[in-house]
Amino acid sequence: MKILIINSGSSSIKYQVITMPEQEVICSGMVDRIGLESSNFTYTTDKTKLEERLVIEDHKSGLVKIANLLMNENVGIIKSTDEIVAVGHRVVHGGNFFSDTAIINQDVKDKIAELSVLVPLHNPAHLIGINVAEEIFAKAKQVAVFDTAFYQTIPVIAHKYAIPNEFYDKDKIRQYGFHGTSNKYVSEKAIEYLQKSSKIISIHLGNGCSITAIKDGKAVDHSMGFSPSNGLIMGTRSGDIDHSLIFYLINTLGYSSTAVNDILLKKSGMLGLTGFSDLREIEAEAEKGNEQCQLALAMNAYRIKKYIGSYAAVLNGIDAIIFTAGIGENSSYIRKLVCTDMDYFGIEINDALNETRSKEIREINTITSKVKIMVIPTNEEMEIAKQVYTLLAV
Amino acid sequence: MKILIINSGSSSIKYQVITMPEQEVICSGMVDRIGLESSNFTYTTDKTKLEERLVIEDHKSGLVKIANLLMNENVGIIKSTDEIVAVGHRVVHGGNFFSDTAIINQDVKDKIAELSVLVPLHNPAHLIGINVAEEIFAKAKQVAVFDTAFYQTIPVIAHKYAIPNEFYDKDKIRQYGFHGTSNKYVSEKAIEYLQKSSKIISIHLGNGCSITAIKDGKAVDHSMGFSPSNGLIMGTRSGDIDHSLIFYLINTLGYSSTAVNDILLKKSGMLGLTGFSDLREIEAEAEKGNEQCQLALAMNAYRIKKYIGSYAAVLNGIDAIIFTAGIGENSSYIRKLVCTDMDYFGIEINDALNETRSKEIREINTITSKVKIMVIPTNEEMEIAKQVYTLLAV
Repeated sequence: MKILIINSGSSSIKYQVITMPEQEVICSGMVDRIGLESSNFTYTTDKTKLEERLVIEDHKSGLVKIANLLMNENVGIIKSTDEIVAVGHRVVHGGNFFSDTAIINQDVKDKIAELSVLVPLHNPAHLIGINVAEEIFAKAKQVAVFDTAFYQTIPVIAHKYAIPNEFYDKDKIRQYGFHGTSNKYVSEKAIEYLQKSSKIISIHLGNGCSITAIKDGKAVDHSMGFSPSNGLIMGTRSGDIDHSLIFYLINTLGYSSTAVNDILLKKSGMLGLTGFSDLREIEAEAEKGNEQCQLALAMNAYRIKKYIGSYAAVLNGIDAIIFTAGIGENSSYIRKLVCTDMDYFGIEINDALNETRSKEIREINTITSKVKIMVIPTNEEMEIAKQVYTLLAV
Repeated sequence: MKILIINSGSSSIKYQVITMPEQEVICSGMVDRIGLESSNFTYTTDKTKLEERLVIEDHKSGLVKIANLLMNENVGIIKSTDEIVAVGHRVVHGGNFFSDTAIINQDVKDKIAELSVLVPLHNPAHLIGINVAEEIFAKAKQVAVFDTAFYQTIPVIAHKYAIPNEFYDKDKIRQYGFHGTSNKYVSEKAIEYLQKSSKIISIHLGNGCSITAIKDGKAVDHSMGFSPSNGLIMGTRSGDIDHSLIFYLINTLGYSSTAVNDILLKKSGMLGLTGFSDLREIEAEAEKGNEQCQLALAMNAYRIKKYIGSYAAVLNGIDAIIFTAGIGENSSYIRKLVCTDMDYFGIEINDALNETRSKEIREINTITSKVKIMVIPTNEEMEIAKQVYTLLAV
């Protein structure tokens, strides 16, 4: 069974075709900078590797180009769009409507749209991807896999805020959590590797950053909340702040609430602290002696350390910590900062192992470290394929 | 030298007269419910204990009554207001203007007033107390002791937010911290008791609640930030939330920013979760089986546990945790919840010791507990007296 996985962002589409149950990726690629002056387009199968720079006006043009290549008589992998049995869509926010994967109909789309107000950068882009995929892959089942679903096991003691009960009961204001698909994937890999159900802290560091406490395979606490704004320091998002400063910015400094929200989402985090939002640039600057960049990296790691300690308390122990996603898998600099002076928790990093590069699951702790420190490449697309397959197989 | 200590709240005045350097409290008392239909007034010396219910119209009437009793020929302790050499005022917010105790002049008062926007429940009430004290104790030095001063040792890595640098550099938006006078007092007591400079976590649970990481006697991190709104769950304050819910309440649910601020300061916390703000009532309800109260207490303790873990990471270890202030000193229920399932940190509570009541500094841990669990009665007034005396002695 061929499943197309689509992760549609505001200006990008990442895609894979995966055969199930074989879990074989037969095609993958992406298009970015949609609507800008020129896009990068990639298309890779085991025989072909295409890279192009061209103008992609909108999500529909992008997906049409992908479909045409999939069916191309030289480099294609299908003869007709009908061969795609299902399209699995990553959807960031399922609110409390969805505690599991769902086959998309108008009602599901309405609910995804209703939740857009909570994640204006994400859900609207997913809907564009869904609508275009429905047109092009008309016979395929369209399935939504929600990032929030993994966190439905978080107990009320952790997911409720200390605000008047009516906001929880009536307005459904609570912690939802994000990056669930990624955290579910890597924590399952870790459990398989460790050969036991364990106390795991999964640290997802990408464009968005979050950290999750996982016990026996189930999420029990998580750093992101009602929307993906809080918790760790991110590329342009502040993460945790004292919320009172919002009222100060509005009431005393005269900002509108919209402007403050914009500052906290788009102008804060590593960008606000350094002028750069790409971690590789920030690390290079730090190594050249840029003190702002050194401080920002130290603040970033300090926040992660505090969450590790916090989740050690939630779990009353730690068997393993996982670093995953773009920064987590690649930044030995951040991993080193996070794991330094953590011997009270039994966390001891091996510097040589930390510096080695690999695309495989691996340990980077010393032999004496009580806690396994693991680097696990995440694979949201494979996790989505697994969930779509499971849903359709029922 | 006789020093009058005044802690002036929005509707109350707590006072003590302390002789220095003897550290002897020769008189103490309070007046609450100022401006309401009837106030409780107390006045205690080693010979006299007065309790009255009467109408106290405003802070000035309250302080005049206190001054008259102090000079009363039967129950008084001074012959004239001139015998009071100094009046030490507790002031919650000193911003980044004050990293130490200060003799009050117009400039100091202007700065306290300027900071009122950050702590509308506190600084304006302190100013009323200062102005009235200046009139009545005209020859005394008026001294301000700031709750924020103890936290000036917190490093930038911990006190800075991940928001654009201009807000830090120009607008001085950063963590300031509160309850510093209390946390300084109890941590010094603990160091004296332990006979070593240590890694201490001080948990102040009163009307406001906060938690502080202290290394070698100096604060290194703290749960409250720019204002005393965030961190632990309090009587009516939410403590930590995902700040994005503020924008949701404003933009989607149509609340004004002022209304949201009011909800988070005055209608949240234990009150928002249970309908009660007094912890003794909530504990009594929980014991009767009220599930909302049970959950709220569990949430409260869960938040404290997470901060203990977090500060264990900051300190890379814990030698002692301190419970202090009204709830911390008296609620064995909360202490038990906090210290349960924390053996990974070497925290083991002794239930029998936890249930005993005492006004003395004491340990409530098991013999095998690696971490000392201490209950230390706080004494902000004595700390203020010590600081005023030190300042005047220089």
